[in-house]
Amino acid sequence: MQLLSSQISGYLERASWIRKMFEEGAKLKAEFGADKVYDFSLGNPDLPPPAAVGKGLAELAKVADKPFALGYMPNAGYDDARAKLAEHLGKEQGVALAAGDLILTCGAAGGLNAFLRAVLEPGEEVLAPAPFFVEYGFYTENHGGVFKTVRAKELTFDLDLDALAAAIGPKTRVVLVNSPNNPTGAVYSQAQMAGLVEILQKKTAEYGRPVFLVADEPYRFLVFDGVQVPALLPLYEYAVVVSSFSKNLSLAGERLGFVAVAPQMPDKARLMAGLILTNRILGFVNAPAVGQKLMAAALGSSVDVAVYDARRKAMAEVLDAGGYEYSMPKGAFYFFPKAPGGDDVAFVNKLKEQRVLAVPGTGFGFPGYFRLTFCVDETIIRASADGFKKANGR
Amino acid sequence: MQLLSSQISGYLERASWIRKMFEEGAKLKAEFGADKVYDFSLGNPDLPPPAAVGKGLAELAKVADKPFALGYMPNAGYDDARAKLAEHLGKEQGVALAAGDLILTCGAAGGLNAFLRAVLEPGEEVLAPAPFFVEYGFYTENHGGVFKTVRAKELTFDLDLDALAAAIGPKTRVVLVNSPNNPTGAVYSQAQMAGLVEILQKKTAEYGRPVFLVADEPYRFLVFDGVQVPALLPLYEYAVVVSSFSKNLSLAGERLGFVAVAPQMPDKARLMAGLILTNRILGFVNAPAVGQKLMAAALGSSVDVAVYDARRKAMAEVLDAGGYEYSMPKGAFYFFPKAPGGDDVAFVNKLKEQRVLAVPGTGFGFPGYFRLTFCVDETIIRASADGFKKANGR
Repeated sequence: MQLLSSQISGYLERASWIRKMFEEGAKLKAEFGADKVYDFSLGNPDLPPPAAVGKGLAELAKVADKPFALGYMPNAGYDDARAKLAEHLGKEQGVALAAGDLILTCGAAGGLNAFLRAVLEPGEEVLAPAPFFVEYGFYTENHGGVFKTVRAKELTFDLDLDALAAAIGPKTRVVLVNSPNNPTGAVYSQAQMAGLVEILQKKTAEYGRPVFLVADEPYRFLVFDGVQVPALLPLYEYAVVVSSFSKNLSLAGERLGFVAVAPQMPDKARLMAGLILTNRILGFVNAPAVGQKLMAAALGSSVDVAVYDARRKAMAEVLDAGGYEYSMPKGAFYFFPKAPGGDDVAFVNKLKEQRVLAVPGTGFGFPGYFRLTFCVDETIIRASADGFKKANGR
Repeated sequence: MQLLSSQISGYLERASWIRKMFEEGAKLKAEFGADKVYDFSLGNPDLPPPAAVGKGLAELAKVADKPFALGYMPNAGYDDARAKLAEHLGKEQGVALAAGDLILTCGAAGGLNAFLRAVLEPGEEVLAPAPFFVEYGFYTENHGGVFKTVRAKELTFDLDLDALAAAIGPKTRVVLVNSPNNPTGAVYSQAQMAGLVEILQKKTAEYGRPVFLVADEPYRFLVFDGVQVPALLPLYEYAVVVSSFSKNLSLAGERLGFVAVAPQMPDKARLMAGLILTNRILGFVNAPAVGQKLMAAALGSSVDVAVYDARRKAMAEVLDAGGYEYSMPKGAFYFFPKAPGGDDVAFVNKLKEQRVLAVPGTGFGFPGYFRLTFCVDETIIRASADGFKKANGR
């Protein structure tokens, strides 16, 4: 008998590429030993959490025998944790942000789901530049939406503003950007974002209802060579920032993130009430209590970005020596090189013969490229050089 | 401009009774002082977590500087936490349960949403006895389902099996029971559950597809007078148990729960794969890491049930002295007495004049009754006696 809905059955059939690579990797590691497999397939932050996280846990242990120590709280999160984050984020974004302008969520993934549940009418569209984070399509369809994409420019992965403008119609409710970007490492410039906002303002006026600009930016802290990630909240009255502490505090498993709205948004109290409701009824209820307390204790600290930068440079040397074409990532911990020969799935298989694990760009809606994650020790990156050369016939 | 979807806008209009009482309560407390308001409206467990929770936090603090200490894990949860819970739950339910038969979730609320997302086709029905936990309707509609109810029997709140049988049709995908029950404190007997299972087996055979029996049982540990909560996993091959550690470990804010399926379910691996997927794509990704570790450390311990029992008896005395008609709760921390005069909303307002806060049964789909929570100190319960008398004209 059929246990699952037909939609979820369908999802299972097209299991993710990342998962496939994970399983292939486990097989290879069992066969050759973990140190002989160069696994660049998973984006699991491997740096230890900053010291403030351990200290926060120790402090919490001291009061855990008090009533309500880890009990219910307002669905939007602890008042003091929200206030602290609002102050921090307000400085980062250059706006006056109040605790009431944000809610704490179960990671950025939980925040995106709560937001889409709150705003999407059935059949409305979420538009994102491709390549895109693989889960966006699921998040959209969870809430009756339709996920559409517009291909970014070759190699630089800059936004194609003309194509985006052409793709936005009366059903477009959200434009979703991820910068610094997974899988490309691109950071959209101030000029690109200003151009996009101009389009959204026009469309919002034309259709008489807001086209939200949602920025998913868990990698904001992780940029290189002095690059700046543009602040979107001051740029657009219908801007929404979603993020998490999975990467900067290495808290990925504890699931702590937030949704913050432009403080100048007309009628924003209504949107916040909706978000608080959807955060509750989707079953999150509130962001995890311990995560909130750890975030408040560790806010402003971060894993060591210099380690990621050294790995980035090592990976660039490896790719240069192997004769690959790529854009140097400006942020996040991903390279997205061109697949030699053009067929990314075939090329990723060639890499696998060298025990190098990557994810084909097809999995991110952008065939012809492949993704490499540098969440791994620099020695592993350097040791993979030979494999990268051989896979490219050198 | 309209920011929210029309459905979510509609939800906001019919704000919950519990929330209304919460706001009224805050007003009264500001006016008369917190100790002069007898607030029985909220089910927020007020007993401190067992000592194992604080110990677990202290242990975790020692290893928080290790890479991946709080990093990603399998979407179903830590392997060892799942295995430990499977062993514990297997004993409780009297079945051989493996780690793969359950997933850890973001509370029972997250578990219910993940389950409904996995199994519901658009327009399919979730059927529950009324009165019911107020969020069930939202959880169902989140995933395109239709929520239907069948009124339980007067005063005892026993299941009306004939009415349930009549209400189950080809679109019924889930029968959802909550025992020990919020808001009534009822515990469905072994005979009632066996009767319900017999109906579900017939309907499943008749329609050629499973009607799941989902038991939401976060209050299983909290029963009085030696009452037993029947184990459902051995009773029915399409039984699913959802629960949390919010009440027995006072961990409500940290959001830790689970979904466990009958180990004899045909093709259960398919359902588990679907659950793991929906837990991921709804944005939970995985249950909070710290909560999982605390659950594993504290499994088998519990807040002091004797405290709740003493409060239950105190509340019964107060109600007896006030001349109320009610069933003595067999479990959970709720009374659900008849509203004198029959109009529950009017009567709850009378109670409020005495600074006694309750929630009308209308909010739980069962007019004519009202809910009292005994998550409050026994002295407050006893001090409310006069108010209860006066509200009932004594």
